[in-house]
Amino acid sequence: MSQPSIFTQIIQGQIPAKVRYQDDEFIAFDDISPKAPVHVLLVPKKEITTLEDVELLDDQFHAKLLQTARKVAKELGIEQNYKLMMNVGRDVQAVHHIHVHILGGWKQGEKAGETLNL
Amino acid sequence: MSQPSIFTQIIQGQIPAKVRYQDDEFIAFDDISPKAPVHVLLVPKKEITTLEDVELLDDQFHAKLLQTARKVAKELGIEQNYKLMMNVGRDVQAVHHIHVHILGGWKQGEKAGETLNL
Repeated sequence: MSQPSIFTQIIQGQIPAKVRYQDDEFIAFDDISPKAPVHVLLVPKKEITTLEDVELLDDQFHAKLLQTARKVAKELGIEQNYKLMMNVGRDVQAVHHIHVHILGGWKQGEKAGETLNL
Repeated sequence: MSQPSIFTQIIQGQIPAKVRYQDDEFIAFDDISPKAPVHVLLVPKKEITTLEDVELLDDQFHAKLLQTARKVAKELGIEQNYKLMMNVGRDVQAVHHIHVHILGGWKQGEKAGETLNL
């Protein structure tokens, strides 16, 4: 068994984080290197390396992940204008624990920035 | 009734596109301005402006959107290493029809590029 991911350590309270949302299955906290005025990571409390490790037929997990991202955006007050981003795969993920980036909070007319310009 | 979105026009065959996947509910085709070696847009055939217009309790839609994105990544052969991105909201969406960006196809060791570096 390898070391718990940095996100598991946050969930267990071993590493501090600014928690923005949590329920039985998910937690959301500020990204330590924010790329937007609001930049939160949504993480399932169960340590799953990557979305590709989730059974494709698991409707509930897939639905809840996206629905919870929307709930978090609403709690953060950015539900009118935000971006969801997810890296999938061991090479592309900075942390080997599923996470969804939720970004927003730009002022009206303010560009999301070239780095996120998709 | 406003004009059909550019994606609806693609679905109806009025605008050409390189289609990579389709089923009864979704279609995926190449982005005309690719930001990665593989850059496909996954779009529900029903024209829904933004994810925030989908009933939050609609488990099926949320599950299928994400599951279909995974299916498309697999069909494209990039399932080991890809990015999913979604703009939510009238201001942040270039097209007012729900779409998920699916990006991948970088060579081993090749960076995804600063523009996508999250």
